[in-house]
Amino acid sequence: MNPSLLDNVAVVLVDTKAPANIGATARCMMNMGLSRLILVNPPQDRTGEARKLAAGADAVLAGATIAGSLREAVAGHQLVTGATRHRGRLRKNMRSPRETAAAIAPLLPANRVALVFGDEVNGLTREDLALCTDLVRIPAADAFPSLNLSHAVLIVAYELALAVAAGAVPDAPRTLATAAEREGFYEHLQTTLVTLGFLDPAHPDRVLFLFRQLFGRAQPDAQEIALLRGLLTAAARGPRPEG
Amino acid sequence: MNPSLLDNVAVVLVDTKAPANIGATARCMMNMGLSRLILVNPPQDRTGEARKLAAGADAVLAGATIAGSLREAVAGHQLVTGATRHRGRLRKNMRSPRETAAAIAPLLPANRVALVFGDEVNGLTREDLALCTDLVRIPAADAFPSLNLSHAVLIVAYELALAVAAGAVPDAPRTLATAAEREGFYEHLQTTLVTLGFLDPAHPDRVLFLFRQLFGRAQPDAQEIALLRGLLTAAARGPRPEG
Repeated sequence: MNPSLLDNVAVVLVDTKAPANIGATARCMMNMGLSRLILVNPPQDRTGEARKLAAGADAVLAGATIAGSLREAVAGHQLVTGATRHRGRLRKNMRSPRETAAAIAPLLPANRVALVFGDEVNGLTREDLALCTDLVRIPAADAFPSLNLSHAVLIVAYELALAVAAGAVPDAPRTLATAAEREGFYEHLQTTLVTLGFLDPAHPDRVLFLFRQLFGRAQPDAQEIALLRGLLTAAARGPRPEG
Repeated sequence: MNPSLLDNVAVVLVDTKAPANIGATARCMMNMGLSRLILVNPPQDRTGEARKLAAGADAVLAGATIAGSLREAVAGHQLVTGATRHRGRLRKNMRSPRETAAAIAPLLPANRVALVFGDEVNGLTREDLALCTDLVRIPAADAFPSLNLSHAVLIVAYELALAVAAGAVPDAPRTLATAAEREGFYEHLQTTLVTLGFLDPAHPDRVLFLFRQLFGRAQPDAQEIALLRGLLTAAARGPRPEG
């Protein structure tokens, strides 16, 4: 495996309830060569059960970053991959772990990737999912589809480590826009769509989620985000008066 | 996934120490469509931590078979795949989880497979490994290669479930010899080799392990085992007197 490439991957755990799951996640991250752990709103106790289950992966636990929100956690990341097991009608950008790894690995030399996992019972919220550029769904038996949190992290980390080990990195990978740059664009988009009467300001989410997935797939870079925002500015200004 | 094919797969846990690991294993087995669990010399408590970590996979726990030895546990299985992380000089038949799954899946319609995992600290013993037809090694970071037991089971089960879901089952898969049939042959082989002066009866293991791996790779069926034993009988009798 190429450890320097996997340094560009963060595992983000949102609202995790059980300290043991944080420890087991730290352990399997280190098993798969990952080291960057970000905890959004974690439980207070991260020394008892968490350290026990980490089984020596203390460096990952001790080096974990604490974030107040998922938006803040992923701000510096170009790719944000959210794990979900529900196939919502609106969820278009959903891939298997193997497909996800194959898509992400070639981008790693020039991009930071956040792999995001929700809490043990409910998974990621709709607001969390909106921040994701793509979704990953772990194949599981229909009759018993709910994986332990660390098991879900392991499957995605395992596929990513294998894909990186397999190589196939392009010569000049593109650096995509960061989550912060994208979110600035989406706010601009929302304002503009309301201005244009295209969006009901009371119920913006469904339409915006469709746009988010479209641009998530498109993987814009910073230059393209600037271009899109230029277009929004022009659209909000409306047609130039003739003459 | 084709659940009936995965019914031919058993997970065998040998000398597991932590009840929580048995529960977490039951859960991830059900996630991946597996249901047959065999416990060799398990801990007494299989209702507290084990049920908690099973998180609803109680059917797998309650249906688990208890065996007194690995030999007894795998007796009815044609394929016995042992998990190990050590690349011993003598260990030839070692494959990745993906290679293992690709090799096993086409054989499932006509064969029973045991996936065997040792205890949390030491893994499978040399005696356990000798009972295996092939070995699986989970790729992991050199600096931190020891996976949690349920994590190791999950990776192998995940790859097997994907390979079965991908299909590609031959028309008439061959039914291989069972572990019991193979062990009868190996005992016959050992006796014969000693009779022939080919084997030091005080130190038989190294040579026998090489033979075991060779025949493990060859995947003999019952007819071929009978043929081999016929040869051993003839060899032990020695050349016929002339005339």
